[in-house]
Amino acid sequence: MLDATVIQYCNHCGQRVSLVIPAGDNRPRHVCAACGNIQYQNPKLVCGCIPVWGERILLCRRAIEPRSGLWTLPAGFMENGETVQHAAARETREEACAEITGQTLYAIYSLPQVNQVHVMFRGALTGEDHFAPGSESLEVRLFDEADIPWSEIAFRVIHLTLERYLEERKSGAFTVSVRDIL
Amino acid sequence: MLDATVIQYCNHCGQRVSLVIPAGDNRPRHVCAACGNIQYQNPKLVCGCIPVWGERILLCRRAIEPRSGLWTLPAGFMENGETVQHAAARETREEACAEITGQTLYAIYSLPQVNQVHVMFRGALTGEDHFAPGSESLEVRLFDEADIPWSEIAFRVIHLTLERYLEERKSGAFTVSVRDIL
Repeated sequence: MLDATVIQYCNHCGQRVSLVIPAGDNRPRHVCAACGNIQYQNPKLVCGCIPVWGERILLCRRAIEPRSGLWTLPAGFMENGETVQHAAARETREEACAEITGQTLYAIYSLPQVNQVHVMFRGALTGEDHFAPGSESLEVRLFDEADIPWSEIAFRVIHLTLERYLEERKSGAFTVSVRDIL
Repeated sequence: MLDATVIQYCNHCGQRVSLVIPAGDNRPRHVCAACGNIQYQNPKLVCGCIPVWGERILLCRRAIEPRSGLWTLPAGFMENGETVQHAAARETREEACAEITGQTLYAIYSLPQVNQVHVMFRGALTGEDHFAPGSESLEVRLFDEADIPWSEIAFRVIHLTLERYLEERKSGAFTVSVRDIL
């Protein structure tokens, strides 16, 4: 897997770029002296969902790297032309063959060390058996709280999200979390 | 200004790229047959703030395109290595030479037609005269509701944000808006 941050050529004209601070800017950018193109690099959005059916939470066992074989919530990179809600719904469809209703914002996490912002929603499945593994999942299951495989959760941010969801569910007072994951 | 979406060359090895659907993907990407690099294009985050001092709201008159000369809230593209709060605070510092306290999430807007997601906070200035035009602003001012220059607001999303803020302020019951701007 190539490191996408290694930018050496202009993607517009194919000439070599230099890492310099453009006029009027205050950060080094990959600038093409030949055609003037600047290749900016910015954080990416990851959108996802906590799909529930009653008391149970839907988790997907990952079929792809990173963390293949471990459990996660449906989530993935937002695409151009989408809204955050559409992206979360599409990821839920792709990874769990499931539709969600009543999408409600649940968290915005900043992960500055990996240049990501995660936008998580909660929502309800459309049926108790309306899910199946998508191509990126080995297995999709509804978990009661007591059965959640805590030692096999793929990402710390998912672990934190599940913990908070289960805690807030006790009172029914769900909040929107704005948190940094460092 | 070049259209950054016109990707013709691999930014890693400088060879021509093709717009094809990679194996295991479902969308056309700019793929380099020579080195395997894929140049993904994803929505960008814009982070900003509604800085207030008591009943008054801080607006900046833009010194740069687009919409130079019109009024806006401090906001701009999030940079790698930042959190959403840091990005909103930095933009407020750069555009209005102001610091904000008590940052609270106020809105997530999806703008799918321009591939952007805006994350807006509200917050208080640290002093009644603790602001000044930054290099991207012609002028920075605190506005009472009656004086807001509605016909000279730079962007519709800012217009909507100000309208909602003023409406919600009447009751003091601020909410987090998740909205699409089409």
